[in-house]
Amino acid sequence: RVLLGPSGPKDNPYPVFLASVTQSIDLAIVLGGDGTALSAARNLAADRIPILAVNVGGHLGFLTESPDDFDSETVWDRLLGDRFAVQRRMMLQASVHEGNRTNLEPISDRYLALNEMCIKPASADRMITSILEMEIDGAVVDQYQGDGLIVATPTGSTCYTLAASGPIIHPGMDAIAITPICPLSLSSRAIIIPPGSVVSIWALADPDLSTKLWMDGVLATSMWPGQRVDIRMAECDAEFIILRKDYSYYQTLREKLQWAGARIQYGNHYRN
Amino acid sequence: RVLLGPSGPKDNPYPVFLASVTQSIDLAIVLGGDGTALSAARNLAADRIPILAVNVGGHLGFLTESPDDFDSETVWDRLLGDRFAVQRRMMLQASVHEGNRTNLEPISDRYLALNEMCIKPASADRMITSILEMEIDGAVVDQYQGDGLIVATPTGSTCYTLAASGPIIHPGMDAIAITPICPLSLSSRAIIIPPGSVVSIWALADPDLSTKLWMDGVLATSMWPGQRVDIRMAECDAEFIILRKDYSYYQTLREKLQWAGARIQYGNHYRN
Amino acid sequence: RVLLGPSGPKDNPYPVFLASVTQSIDLAIVLGGDGTALSAARNLAADRIPILAVNVGGHLGFLTESPDDFDSETVWDRLLGDRFAVQRRMMLQASVHEGNRTNLEPISDRYLALNEMCIKPASADRMITSILEMEIDGAVVDQYQGDGLIVATPTGSTCYTLAASGPIIHPGMDAIAITPICPLSLSSRAIIIPPGSVVSIWALADPDLSTKLWMDGVLATSMWPGQRVDIRMAECDAEFIILRKDYSYYQTLREKLQWAGARIQYGNHYRN
Amino acid sequence: RVLLGPSGPKDNPYPVFLASVTQSIDLAIVLGGDGTALSAARNLAADRIPILAVNVGGHLGFLTESPDDFDSETVWDRLLGDRFAVQRRMMLQASVHEGNRTNLEPISDRYLALNEMCIKPASADRMITSILEMEIDGAVVDQYQGDGLIVATPTGSTCYTLAASGPIIHPGMDAIAITPICPLSLSSRAIIIPPGSVVSIWALADPDLSTKLWMDGVLATSMWPGQRVDIRMAECDAEFIILRKDYSYYQTLREKLQWAGARIQYGNHYRN
Repeated sequence: RVLLGPSGPKDNPYPVFLASVTQSIDLAIVLGGDGTALSAARNLAADRIPILAVNVGGHLGFLTESPDDFDSETVWDRLLGDRFAVQRRMMLQASVHEGNRTNLEPISDRYLALNEMCIKPASADRMITSILEMEIDGAVVDQYQGDGLIVATPTGSTCYTLAASGPIIHPGMDAIAITPICPLSLSSRAIIIPPGSVVSIWALADPDLSTKLWMDGVLATSMWPGQRVDIRMAECDAEFIILRKDYSYYQTLREKLQWAGARIQYGNHYRN
Repeated sequence: RVLLGPSGPKDNPYPVFLASVTQSIDLAIVLGGDGTALSAARNLAADRIPILAVNVGGHLGFLTESPDDFDSETVWDRLLGDRFAVQRRMMLQASVHEGNRTNLEPISDRYLALNEMCIKPASADRMITSILEMEIDGAVVDQYQGDGLIVATPTGSTCYTLAASGPIIHPGMDAIAITPICPLSLSSRAIIIPPGSVVSIWALADPDLSTKLWMDGVLATSMWPGQRVDIRMAECDAEFIILRKDYSYYQTLREKLQWAGARIQYGNHYRN
Repeated sequence: RVLLGPSGPKDNPYPVFLASVTQSIDLAIVLGGDGTALSAARNLAADRIPILAVNVGGHLGFLTESPDDFDSETVWDRLLGDRFAVQRRMMLQASVHEGNRTNLEPISDRYLALNEMCIKPASADRMITSILEMEIDGAVVDQYQGDGLIVATPTGSTCYTLAASGPIIHPGMDAIAITPICPLSLSSRAIIIPPGSVVSIWALADPDLSTKLWMDGVLATSMWPGQRVDIRMAECDAEFIILRKDYSYYQTLREKLQWAGARIQYGNHYRN
Repeated sequence: RVLLGPSGPKDNPYPVFLASVTQSIDLAIVLGGDGTALSAARNLAADRIPILAVNVGGHLGFLTESPDDFDSETVWDRLLGDRFAVQRRMMLQASVHEGNRTNLEPISDRYLALNEMCIKPASADRMITSILEMEIDGAVVDQYQGDGLIVATPTGSTCYTLAASGPIIHPGMDAIAITPICPLSLSSRAIIIPPGSVVSIWALADPDLSTKLWMDGVLATSMWPGQRVDIRMAECDAEFIILRKDYSYYQTLREKLQWAGARIQYGNHYRN
């Protein structure tokens, strides 16, 4: 049995799909770009549904299979015959709490993200400098004054984290990268911490109540003064079906991001 | 029984120590700064000798205990009574090989580093731009034109890697950070890869034969054209004895590196 | 005759002041931080009114005199006796136009900024990636995908430009610094162009009509699709009265921004 | 009358040329890449000899004309008929002095550079961290601990300065960019200062006497302890003959450095 529906910035078909089935869903095939794949992961990972993301938008993706690979063989045969690899990718979960870190009871939903959680103010007519305090595992680490904070997975390191001058992390690793967005401090720098860490963030001095939590660039919830958000590795992973036989992360980096250490390539005559 | 000797840029007492004992060494106490601790780790890690590094130089260290902690209690009692923590830190090993990656037989010693392996040319009267090709796990990743390449551990991420705008990585993680030094390319960026990866590097176009391999900033060996260096996680770890009860990596970052997301600190009145 | 009034994010007393006088204004004394001084400059520079900005907020400022200097001598005597220096600082002006660069007639006010003009989307509930096209002096230079673009003066280089990893430029120079905010491109980099250049910017692909022009972080106007904003050196300068005898830009950099090339200071015994 | 000779890392024909003529030289035509053009500028600028640099190496250059432009018309006719533009580029001069800045008498030659002066240690077998103190116009600005310091012209901003994460400056400007090379400080950042500034640099703590002054990457001289180097705008400019009719600096940036704010180009339908 197959369920069909549109997906996009204004359409989220997944809750209806998940509510309308009695059996567990075997597989989701999503057509679109990396954004479509992110949305599928946020909605399907908790139910452990593997995702086959097919890039139909034209641009090379980190998360999507090319339609060429899709067409090259009878995909259904491969899917039914279990002839595919599954790539597991770490996700993040976030929840909002009142007050300090000893208060473990969330007052919000549990939000999931595959790329990043972001704490950033939003306003239609003001440019707001956020002041955020961060604890890791219960110890105050730092305050950040600037455009906000990105807490990312390795998968997300090539997205907003990279734009904010953060590090590129191989998605085969479990790690959490914390990158300030345009910090008003010369000595600020991104940091990579173990996946078992819990990151707690407060918004200080937010008179216009504009601070918000974003998951993969989508609004999750507002954060009021006195509340903290706790971000940690999610209990579930995103599972992507890989059809390509020659998947190379480094090649995708080079082709999609034009990542390159040299502008001019030399020959290596030394390989024997 | 206690062996005593000087250590420094021109003194390496460890081979003599290791050769002159018949029993295994229980513990090394080294007095100095982070450089002294690095040297001890390179020389003692393979024999699994724990190191108590005491900072007598005055500057706060990432690897050293403060003499204040050292004096605050009868250290010998704690050491004899096993009342101390041991911090394990990942190291790197490197070896030089002829030709391509299928040639697994090294033609050099196995070099160890706690901070970083660095491939960089050296000359007394020329400023040399190196051209390096890098493979990871057998796939060509990129070429780098510039001052060289740093392959670092998380421990080393706060040293030369940081100076080359690389990422800061919590030393509780196992990971390898590859950071180009002054690359002549706008789109070059550091990358963090899984600890199980093997990084192979060739020096191309080196007419003056100036390329060298450095371990923690100390010359390991020259690299001739046609040779490659393989760098991977070492089989042994460095083991440091921690006497402090309240060790915080983030606090050391702030105090030693003046790492700071904000110049002005606000109060957080929200902790209840 | 002296006019008095409050100034702040919600108070702009300058239009009333300027409308209520029949004689020209000799001097404005503003009490506050750098933000107060910026607002005075935007409102008073066109009328060539010199500004004495006195820092009463506590934090060291780039634009403000310390109250200590203010009190140390009879300031009125110095002002009346012309015993002070005037520091001239380049400003930027911006205007919105329809269509391409040949259309020189503005459809907006002329906006002034002392720090920077910024083109950046604003929304209360969406995180928007802007796509901006930039021409300089009539030639297409580049497109920028990310959080926006900052076009700054040397004075502004130590503010939002610095947070976006742009260059620090001595305010004694005339120059325009263009810095992308979190660009989704590894090879993007700030550029400094001559002060006589005209920078034209279009917002492409802005379905939610969220792109806005900001002057020193304050909303100037919305930018609709098809409109371009032209930014150039303003015809007027900001003029600040300097009472200090030993003003040093580099010292302010070190003290206010903790700008520092070395964490540990060595003695220089070589000065004879 | 025409003089011919080879030029390269090991050949400097210019002193012989300059010594062997009785009349002034009208024009130098140099064939090669940017390095050849730099060498010609260093040697010919003081005599105000215009340079026609023709790129025969294959790679696009910032300083060289393409052989295509060279061939497209009778170049001799244009040169003899004065139908070409001359692009003036600011240079730097450096001299070594004993002790503090009041000692104006140099003890060295006057060195010229078109790209940059660089203070950097060099050694065949040690990796050396330099400790440099810098004054600007007689005021101590900062100390730098790291791989060295680059003092560059706008022309040089796209070379080593760019590799060290310094700013890109339009070569139509006069300015001096100071960029630390791999500084061991999180809060270090490049700075751009007015062209009339004098930059003085001392090497502190140099036990191996390895600090050297480099001009455009070529060794100028050693710097001994107690000596300072003074760097300022040169009295002479480099003069390059431009044959292209449509020279665009921004286009060269994009094509040579792959400088790009966006990976994907959108259409701008708004130009009317």
